Amino acid sequence: MLSRLPVIAITVGEPAGIGPEISLLAAWDLRSQIRPVLIGDAAYLAMLAQDLDKNIRLMAISQQALRNNGLPGCGRDQITVIDCPLAAHVVAGQLDPRNGRAVLATLDSAIECIQQGWCDAMVTAPLQKSTINDAGVAFTGHTEYLAQQTKTPQVVMMLACEASAHLPQPLRVALATTHLPLRAVPDAIQFDHLLTSLQIIHDDLQVKFGIAKPKIYVAGLNPHAGENGYLGQEEIDVINPVILHARGLGMDVHGAFPADTLFQQKYLKDADCVLAMYHDQGLSVLKHASFGLGVNITLGLPLIRTSVDHGTALDLAKLGTGLADAGSMKVAIRIAAEMVARQHAATNSATRHH
Amino acid sequence: MLSRLPVIAITVGEPAGIGPEISLLAAWDLRSQIRPVLIGDAAYLAMLAQDLDKNIRLMAISQQALRNNGLPGCGRDQITVIDCPLAAHVVAGQLDPRNGRAVLATLDSAIECIQQGWCDAMVTAPLQKSTINDAGVAFTGHTEYLAQQTKTPQVVMMLACEASAHLPQPLRVALATTHLPLRAVPDAIQFDHLLTSLQIIHDDLQVKFGIAKPKIYVAGLNPHAGENGYLGQEEIDVINPVILHARGLGMDVHGAFPADTLFQQKYLKDADCVLAMYHDQGLSVLKHASFGLGVNITLGLPLIRTSVDHGTALDLAKLGTGLADAGSMKVAIRIAAEMVARQHAATNSATRHH
Repeated sequence: MLSRLPVIAITVGEPAGIGPEISLLAAWDLRSQIRPVLIGDAAYLAMLAQDLDKNIRLMAISQQALRNNGLPGCGRDQITVIDCPLAAHVVAGQLDPRNGRAVLATLDSAIECIQQGWCDAMVTAPLQKSTINDAGVAFTGHTEYLAQQTKTPQVVMMLACEASAHLPQPLRVALATTHLPLRAVPDAIQFDHLLTSLQIIHDDLQVKFGIAKPKIYVAGLNPHAGENGYLGQEEIDVINPVILHARGLGMDVHGAFPADTLFQQKYLKDADCVLAMYHDQGLSVLKHASFGLGVNITLGLPLIRTSVDHGTALDLAKLGTGLADAGSMKVAIRIAAEMVARQHAATNSATRHH
Repeated sequence: MLSRLPVIAITVGEPAGIGPEISLLAAWDLRSQIRPVLIGDAAYLAMLAQDLDKNIRLMAISQQALRNNGLPGCGRDQITVIDCPLAAHVVAGQLDPRNGRAVLATLDSAIECIQQGWCDAMVTAPLQKSTINDAGVAFTGHTEYLAQQTKTPQVVMMLACEASAHLPQPLRVALATTHLPLRAVPDAIQFDHLLTSLQIIHDDLQVKFGIAKPKIYVAGLNPHAGENGYLGQEEIDVINPVILHARGLGMDVHGAFPADTLFQQKYLKDADCVLAMYHDQGLSVLKHASFGLGVNITLGLPLIRTSVDHGTALDLAKLGTGLADAGSMKVAIRIAAEMVARQHAATNSATRHH
């Protein structure tokens, strides 16, 4: 068990976008470090692989075969593909709602792979939410869908990037709310939900990231964190009381801080994670700082899931042009593999000690 | 006229904060490039100067003397101080509402200095809004106050930083809304106001920054710029129509773009300015990227005004400890001086041609 490579399920995302291309390139590039299992339309991926690099070899299996016999063995120079057939022909750059349900099916397949023990973690390429909604399925995002399908009452979306020339230490930004219209954000900041978010972040930083006593900085909702109530009440009414309560539970949590101050290097260097109140407050900085190498990590799920931090880039998705950058995808796969290794180590340690 | 140094009025801000200290240090440091005129309590500044650097020499004048005779001549190794006496003794780090009105008086004095031709531009050190509000004066910020006192119907707050090792080109971020509770932001994004903001940014980038055809990128209000209406309607209803209209007026405006995408280097490099919809969407990135050297510039005023991009830092304001960093203040003064030089050049050119 310990000596085998981490088996990473990779859903290839919106077929008309760059997802299939970056999934193939990253899987092929990292095949000596992990065993990649792509989940998507096998025929389309085979055609795309030929255009990208004639050396890439794929081995496709049906979901039926997988359910009958589990994941078959595979040579180091092959990529396994679980076939999730698309309904309509793919035209790169052109969204087609007829393929919306097939994209969802890749997520269901990845969850099944982990629940059945065939894969250790899942990494998701970008999808187009509108394609799925236009197919008649209400869908607000990967994160929310995975929570629903695994019956997880609450998850936390975190984006992270590794240290670099521009950034002396890793930057991790978690979100208290995710894909909501800005108008709906203030009312979504509620005591119990925010406290649970802090607990999830704290626990996952310990278990999945190996940080013994995670230090979490919390941003305010309003400019200047409300400036003592002159620019909003949510800090006084909700956020500061939650922080006090979390400290009472033994968490090392600080704030609420003004977001524009908090993200300065002199403050960031002391934090293991920043909790932003909403999408653009946290992710604009993270994506600026990460130079295209950010990774999305869902905390609180009963499975390990990471993702790229970018969209489908329909304009770059021209068959085999190689314009798409697989950098974020590769980091997402590497971070998932590290989390798997940490989980294996913890499990084996627990087995030995109990 | 051309050969004299730019005369820069510097309001020293909240007396209990770091404003007086960074104003003194920056003025002294830059005294060969500009003529600084500090506006604050002369006795307190004299005491502070002695603690900071025994070489600093101040020459105080009363507002009455200024009104009678204008700004007197001054040696290169002296700093002029216009005396705006405080009501209460200053304890560094301790806010005192009794001094709120004196802080406001420094702003009024700076405006008068420019309107009377005694000074060319004003630079403001940070003040504490709560001190002024607690003194019984409704006050939401420097920017709003200067607009009101100069009877300017609309101004735009812009933050900028210079190119650096971390940033290949200057970054300029303007705000469509400024100091509002987040809850009030969506309804404040209105067609006429947003269009006027774009016009002000466009005109000031031409006149005060010398950019012939400024390229402006506009962020969406909602995450993913509303994702075709799935995450909010303001892009469809207001922001995109404003952008189209501005283009029709000949402005080079693009968007609405998702904020978390827009601030990536690969997009930023093409823009002379980004218009963010609200405070934390734009300033979190700017302040992260500027490493404490950001400058606040008010566009649309009939005078040149720049400011530091940080707060009063009450915790660092201990008399003469020298913990405060005057870096942002120095950049704010330099940028104001450059704008003055550009204005002089334009005025002289106009005089010659007409």
